[in-house]
Amino acid sequence: MNFRTSAAVAVAALLACGAAAAQFKSPDDAIEYRQGALAVMGHHFGQLGAMANGKIPYDAAAAKADAELVATLSRLPWSAFVEGSDKGETSARPEIWSQRDKFNADARKLQDAVARLLEAARTGKPDALKAAFGPTAQACKSCHDDFRRKH
Amino acid sequence: MNFRTSAAVAVAALLACGAAAAQFKSPDDAIEYRQGALAVMGHHFGQLGAMANGKIPYDAAAAKADAELVATLSRLPWSAFVEGSDKGETSARPEIWSQRDKFNADARKLQDAVARLLEAARTGKPDALKAAFGPTAQACKSCHDDFRRKH
Repeated sequence: MNFRTSAAVAVAALLACGAAAAQFKSPDDAIEYRQGALAVMGHHFGQLGAMANGKIPYDAAAAKADAELVATLSRLPWSAFVEGSDKGETSARPEIWSQRDKFNADARKLQDAVARLLEAARTGKPDALKAAFGPTAQACKSCHDDFRRKH
Repeated sequence: MNFRTSAAVAVAALLACGAAAAQFKSPDDAIEYRQGALAVMGHHFGQLGAMANGKIPYDAAAAKADAELVATLSRLPWSAFVEGSDKGETSARPEIWSQRDKFNADARKLQDAVARLLEAARTGKPDALKAAFGPTAQACKSCHDDFRRKH
């Protein structure tokens, strides 16, 4: 990695929103990080979906713990879409970088939906969880449709 | 996956400690989950190390945010070492399953060390962070030495 690329990566990381904005040693490190955060988030979101859809029994404490993890993790991936990390083992589409404002807006929409999902989980009411789950899933899907490669 | 394997995976997941104990669709799902949690945890732990060792400037707010993430993530990977997930793209050694009590004790030691690291980060004092970082890194290393394959 030459100095210009390295500096660009550092600047992109520093400009990224969120506490504890991540700084990465290389684009591959950033890819591993964001994929890790999204995989763990997806898993706990999937458990909430299974509860919302009645595939597993509703468990108020588990729903709250899952939603808290989803809320925490939903802040993390975005700062890891650093310059140069469109190459390598990634499903990220180049539009993430060419339409960055739209991508950032989608990330904010997800975080807003997740905040409502967490509120719903904290009520301890299955119906509240069910009502909040769909819009959150839609926020995931909408961003994936525009910015993630189809496999 | 046959019924017996599926049931064993479910039981292992349910027996695992920690809130929001994860249930996995397959051993590969469990591997992806634990690697994701460990990668994100490792990244934020690395940032704390860079601050503790003076490689990047100490930033009290960032240190607190990093330590909170490390503490949250340090609860997650262990329930994902389900039966059958010793195969596939994993560096997990078979001793995780044959010496499970020792592995679980190592996981608890890490979580205890991380709790002290978080306390240290919350003081806002670089010296406290520095003092707590070493023992936490040692807890990571000790478990890796015994239970992770060398590359």
